Amino acid sequence: MNGVPVIRIRGYHTDLYGHVNNARYLEFLEEGRWRLFEDFLDLDGWMKRGFSFFVVNINIHYKRSIELHETIEIHSGILRYGNKSAVLRQKIFLQGTDILCAEADVTFVVIGKETSGALPITGEIRERLSPLPMAS
Amino acid sequence: MNGVPVIRIRGYHTDLYGHVNNARYLEFLEEGRWRLFEDFLDLDGWMKRGFSFFVVNINIHYKRSIELHETIEIHSGILRYGNKSAVLRQKIFLQGTDILCAEADVTFVVIGKETSGALPITGEIRERLSPLPMAS
Amino acid sequence: MNGVPVIRIRGYHTDLYGHVNNARYLEFLEEGRWRLFEDFLDLDGWMKRGFSFFVVNINIHYKRSIELHETIEIHSGILRYGNKSAVLRQKIFLQGTDILCAEADVTFVVIGKETSGALPITGEIRERLSPLPMAS
Amino acid sequence: MNGVPVIRIRGYHTDLYGHVNNARYLEFLEEGRWRLFEDFLDLDGWMKRGFSFFVVNINIHYKRSIELHETIEIHSGILRYGNKSAVLRQKIFLQGTDILCAEADVTFVVIGKETSGALPITGEIRERLSPLPMAS
Repeated sequence: MNGVPVIRIRGYHTDLYGHVNNARYLEFLEEGRWRLFEDFLDLDGWMKRGFSFFVVNINIHYKRSIELHETIEIHSGILRYGNKSAVLRQKIFLQGTDILCAEADVTFVVIGKETSGALPITGEIRERLSPLPMAS
Repeated sequence: MNGVPVIRIRGYHTDLYGHVNNARYLEFLEEGRWRLFEDFLDLDGWMKRGFSFFVVNINIHYKRSIELHETIEIHSGILRYGNKSAVLRQKIFLQGTDILCAEADVTFVVIGKETSGALPITGEIRERLSPLPMAS
Repeated sequence: MNGVPVIRIRGYHTDLYGHVNNARYLEFLEEGRWRLFEDFLDLDGWMKRGFSFFVVNINIHYKRSIELHETIEIHSGILRYGNKSAVLRQKIFLQGTDILCAEADVTFVVIGKETSGALPITGEIRERLSPLPMAS
Repeated sequence: MNGVPVIRIRGYHTDLYGHVNNARYLEFLEEGRWRLFEDFLDLDGWMKRGFSFFVVNINIHYKRSIELHETIEIHSGILRYGNKSAVLRQKIFLQGTDILCAEADVTFVVIGKETSGALPITGEIRERLSPLPMAS
């Protein structure tokens, strides 16, 4: 499915309780964002223009432990656009179910090569982001 | 300093931008919580009673990139106690400065060995947690 | 392809040089072993009998840096069986090419639930391992 | 102690067996190398000259599981110099004991900024490395 990576949980993902460690969830979310951007955006064009994403806030709710040998899928979509930031909502489900393991709102800004600070999410940047699906 | 781990940033902490990767911050926060609990709580007694901490939410603001060869310190304290959860505030500073790299509120619950679900933060549990410093 | 996981390199896999960090290769190798065992062995039966794998040596040659956005595949096969250990050879290639990024020999032993120390790779254990492909 | 980092094992270091995961050992070895180089070499001068280290082989023997709440120390020293490479021996002990958890030989080469391929370990480079202690 476009923009939805699937990951099978291995020993190296888990910690002493046999559960996926808190920090690993953020790698899963990053995987979800890369996949989303790859599948929906012109990522090459984006990078050639010198734009990059910079995450400024992650608010993650851990809903259910994820365990060895389980398989998850990561769904991502835009929750809202602000003036100089945007918020992605990302949800981790057990594969093929509506069992929600974690839900996170990830706020990012766009940085240019020459300027410092966040660029307004308008004009070219807003247009380049427009193919991203909205959060369901 | 009691409850304040110090970490020097190495290559394996950073990602392609030469910055500490988002997920690593959560390992640093976990390090901070272990150190806090070790230094202020009777962790052996806690575990013998069958109690364990379970993180249900992390809300982290990334304020400033952390780079190779920089040294950070992680400060942690209780922000507030709720009925069945408590919130720790954790701050990552450049060592010996007030330059704030990240600030996170971490909500945890206490789980018992025999019951399922979060235990009330009252009585014995509240007492065992009482040596924890409040967030400054 | 059976027993051959494919991984696309993301920011969180890389370190300050923009290359996959040395330690991450070992996660890729672990991913390769899980996939190999899942696809060729009766892993449920293996665990029900109380057997587990324990890695005692990894000898890894780093041949070529792996970079962001590259895609790799991990090939694994038995190199040889010893009396109380066996050696897997694992190779990491750029996907669909014969460009070798790393080659590792991984020596493992089999541990039982009740005995301590490595079990002989004979009888039932040897038979359970026999579906594993030999290294090419 | 100079060149000998000390690490306390936390939940995020361990995997489902309650043991430190194989890949984490390589982060501990990297920590050991950074500490060694920082404490014994003129690392700033080294980088200003455009030299960098590149690991080409790690051969690690896992001798004993490392578990939650244990504390380790990492000892490193030069085993031998070759023409275009050098080998560091690194040992992970339980802190303050001679209980050996892992032993690794790490072969590295030196890369310059302008040339491709490994530089000879002679002249200026050999001299700059000479303060490193030999493996005991």
